[in-house]
Amino acid sequence: MAVSTKFYAIVAGVGPGTGRSVAIRFSEAYPVILLARSPESYKDVVAEINKGGRKAIGITADATDESALKSAFETIKKELPDLKLAAAIFNVRPNSRPSIKPFLELSIKDLDTSLKGNIHGFFNFGQAVVPLLLDSVATSPLPPSLLITGATASLRGSKLWSVVAAGKSGQRILAQSLAREFGPQGVHVAHAIIDGRIDVPDATHYPRNDETPEGTISPYAIAESYWYLHTQHKSAFTQELDLRPHVEKF
Amino acid sequence: MAVSTKFYAIVAGVGPGTGRSVAIRFSEAYPVILLARSPESYKDVVAEINKGGRKAIGITADATDESALKSAFETIKKELPDLKLAAAIFNVRPNSRPSIKPFLELSIKDLDTSLKGNIHGFFNFGQAVVPLLLDSVATSPLPPSLLITGATASLRGSKLWSVVAAGKSGQRILAQSLAREFGPQGVHVAHAIIDGRIDVPDATHYPRNDETPEGTISPYAIAESYWYLHTQHKSAFTQELDLRPHVEKF
Amino acid sequence: MAVSTKFYAIVAGVGPGTGRSVAIRFSEAYPVILLARSPESYKDVVAEINKGGRKAIGITADATDESALKSAFETIKKELPDLKLAAAIFNVRPNSRPSIKPFLELSIKDLDTSLKGNIHGFFNFGQAVVPLLLDSVATSPLPPSLLITGATASLRGSKLWSVVAAGKSGQRILAQSLAREFGPQGVHVAHAIIDGRIDVPDATHYPRNDETPEGTISPYAIAESYWYLHTQHKSAFTQELDLRPHVEKF
Amino acid sequence: MAVSTKFYAIVAGVGPGTGRSVAIRFSEAYPVILLARSPESYKDVVAEINKGGRKAIGITADATDESALKSAFETIKKELPDLKLAAAIFNVRPNSRPSIKPFLELSIKDLDTSLKGNIHGFFNFGQAVVPLLLDSVATSPLPPSLLITGATASLRGSKLWSVVAAGKSGQRILAQSLAREFGPQGVHVAHAIIDGRIDVPDATHYPRNDETPEGTISPYAIAESYWYLHTQHKSAFTQELDLRPHVEKF
Repeated sequence: MAVSTKFYAIVAGVGPGTGRSVAIRFSEAYPVILLARSPESYKDVVAEINKGGRKAIGITADATDESALKSAFETIKKELPDLKLAAAIFNVRPNSRPSIKPFLELSIKDLDTSLKGNIHGFFNFGQAVVPLLLDSVATSPLPPSLLITGATASLRGSKLWSVVAAGKSGQRILAQSLAREFGPQGVHVAHAIIDGRIDVPDATHYPRNDETPEGTISPYAIAESYWYLHTQHKSAFTQELDLRPHVEKF
Repeated sequence: MAVSTKFYAIVAGVGPGTGRSVAIRFSEAYPVILLARSPESYKDVVAEINKGGRKAIGITADATDESALKSAFETIKKELPDLKLAAAIFNVRPNSRPSIKPFLELSIKDLDTSLKGNIHGFFNFGQAVVPLLLDSVATSPLPPSLLITGATASLRGSKLWSVVAAGKSGQRILAQSLAREFGPQGVHVAHAIIDGRIDVPDATHYPRNDETPEGTISPYAIAESYWYLHTQHKSAFTQELDLRPHVEKF
Repeated sequence: MAVSTKFYAIVAGVGPGTGRSVAIRFSEAYPVILLARSPESYKDVVAEINKGGRKAIGITADATDESALKSAFETIKKELPDLKLAAAIFNVRPNSRPSIKPFLELSIKDLDTSLKGNIHGFFNFGQAVVPLLLDSVATSPLPPSLLITGATASLRGSKLWSVVAAGKSGQRILAQSLAREFGPQGVHVAHAIIDGRIDVPDATHYPRNDETPEGTISPYAIAESYWYLHTQHKSAFTQELDLRPHVEKF
Repeated sequence: MAVSTKFYAIVAGVGPGTGRSVAIRFSEAYPVILLARSPESYKDVVAEINKGGRKAIGITADATDESALKSAFETIKKELPDLKLAAAIFNVRPNSRPSIKPFLELSIKDLDTSLKGNIHGFFNFGQAVVPLLLDSVATSPLPPSLLITGATASLRGSKLWSVVAAGKSGQRILAQSLAREFGPQGVHVAHAIIDGRIDVPDATHYPRNDETPEGTISPYAIAESYWYLHTQHKSAFTQELDLRPHVEKF
């Protein structure tokens, strides 16, 4: 598949794991925009993609910040004036480490970090990309897609993960609402439950599934799943799937 | 059952429906604190309970506001200096009408209203009452209980209810986390999915289940369920139950 | 509450645990029929209830056997000619110990035991009692109820419990179908997920919740929950609740 | 991808919809065995695959019948003596039309048809193929896979679908048990919830997604999803996914 000259993809939330792999995978088909809070997060993968003869553009922006996101999309319009959006991946983590603590040791700030990163962030991203995806429905060869990275905590609470689970579950149900609203209009909204620890490969070759340590999830395998979701025919959309290492207890 | 002289109950979120009925039901066993954002919401039911020879105290406070809640509990300590907390019911609604709109017509303010009322509010309330409930475990005849009012939107998203569902589902999973953390310590955390429209009785007699219009839920019946949850033996706690009119489709 | 002279209850599946406790609890309000595959299972509890001045009748019948069940209801009609059915509890276990084995060591006979006990049994019981419960809707003070004992395996499969889980999950969904069909007609169908090991008390005093070993479920507490479900107002039926020891991980 | 000379696939349950499309899709990679109760069900698709230069063998057998299934696998051993099993798809329907009726109009025979087709059938098929799939783990390029066709009724009961839902939900949980038992041993067990009406194409060209009537699911799209599941890396297995038309309400 040649890289599209009419459509691009955007990956919000790029680090060394899922975001990087998804950006590489989608760059096989589309010019890819990488959004991250700091250039350190995307600069290596942007270089890696561009070196391979494909196209990637890194933009520094906090996806949970409405105006930063707005300005990012203005930049995209300048950089890729004739391209429409085919796929948007929301893979953003809250902007500080999650607070894995007993409930009574948590502060409202811990809660805010989770809600802001998971729910506000996805809300803002959704409001920015859904109109662009709707605008691509008539012409995109593959159904325009909004894909969200969920986790075990998206489905259930637990002793130490109370605020993380509150944020992830709210994000999941928000994504489900969007699927119900925009599926009939032709946009594919899908949520992936990543149930296990993700391997962070220390090398740059692709794919490296075979070198994934037993019990961890290969980010390349996640990327394949996201690509598959994007390719699903509109008569058979998946709204949610789980992904876990074959040895994972569940 | 005589009204306790050692324990009290608190109902956060009192209006003419569920909150009022729950307060009346628990006042049969405990002095009851009623929290609401304005005295209009609780003054009639406080009068009704006190007129009946039982005890109710109304306190004006926004349960979603950390410091207002703190000050409310200082007032309670002055009013009921020797009593411990046996049951806390969280029945608070966001402080403005929910935004039932297409996703692209929603603003971040609509989202904030839902998250603040549902998740922040419950988080603050939980942080205030859990230590008090833990302190009652050794002496309370019934397991100290934290009961939460959920809704259909706690379980699933839908086209027009995206931000409401994000808030309610996050609240539900937060409650589930608290159940997993504090159940083993003796506190009963239970979540009720209210799946249907609640009748708002226009009279003050109690109970009036029989006069509930077909297809609506009697708030007195909800109150009975909450009381039942509070009475469950610690060897058989319910974490979640649904409540719906017998004619409701589900 | 005096024992009814117009309605009776039936408990299918009586052993020393849940069935016995439920029969005792419902005998406070109704003459109770106890069904079991052998008189050994019910004779002590029948004696215990009758000795206490209430009324119990034991009938030997395999509730999974259509004709045995038919004949049991003919016996009931002779014994209690003027009474209608107010509550039916299905607490039957398959007629041999469940096969907790690796999948490849199971035989089709193991599967049949689970399906016959759990699904056929409940199907036959449902077909026998639903018409009787419907016939009581107009006159029963409490909504006529069909209550089913479920388990953790009703919700999820696991490595060694494959055939048990297949049977219990099929039973649960069958119960859910009946709730959706007969709720609107006034019959309350509710399913309880018993998530933990049930204590089998070795004495006959009632209630003995306080002597339940930590980590096990008191069958008396289960019985209270079943009674509560039966008392729910038709404007607020519960279709499913979970019951577990406060220390149980879930 | 050339057709394998070392591995084959088997599709149990072949008709004009999903089974045919899945057989065609897997025949691109493997010789394919098609099992059906009568040759009419498979003969056209077997001819179609063989005409295309790929390989298909039809075997007449009722997959719900233990001995018929045993004899089918003996035939396979003779036909493909050196090949191992890479993928087994269970797409069998009960052997008569499902009984979509009010509960009180159903007979035990209706129940048996559902349980036998859905649960016994899958149990027998699982017992036959799991040892073969385990035997392929060490050498198969793609993780040996057992894929099951589920439906909306696998997740929930409803008024008229009580016995269908009992059978499908029991089948789903049985599949989940197998996933938990055999995933760690390298076999991928995945269950697809087909939530919508499947289009039955009247022509033989492949693929014809574009001609699927709005609101129906293309069986070719289902086949693509099954193939994708088979290709998933063992570090990121999906256990369950849903498939529905983009316009379907859910």
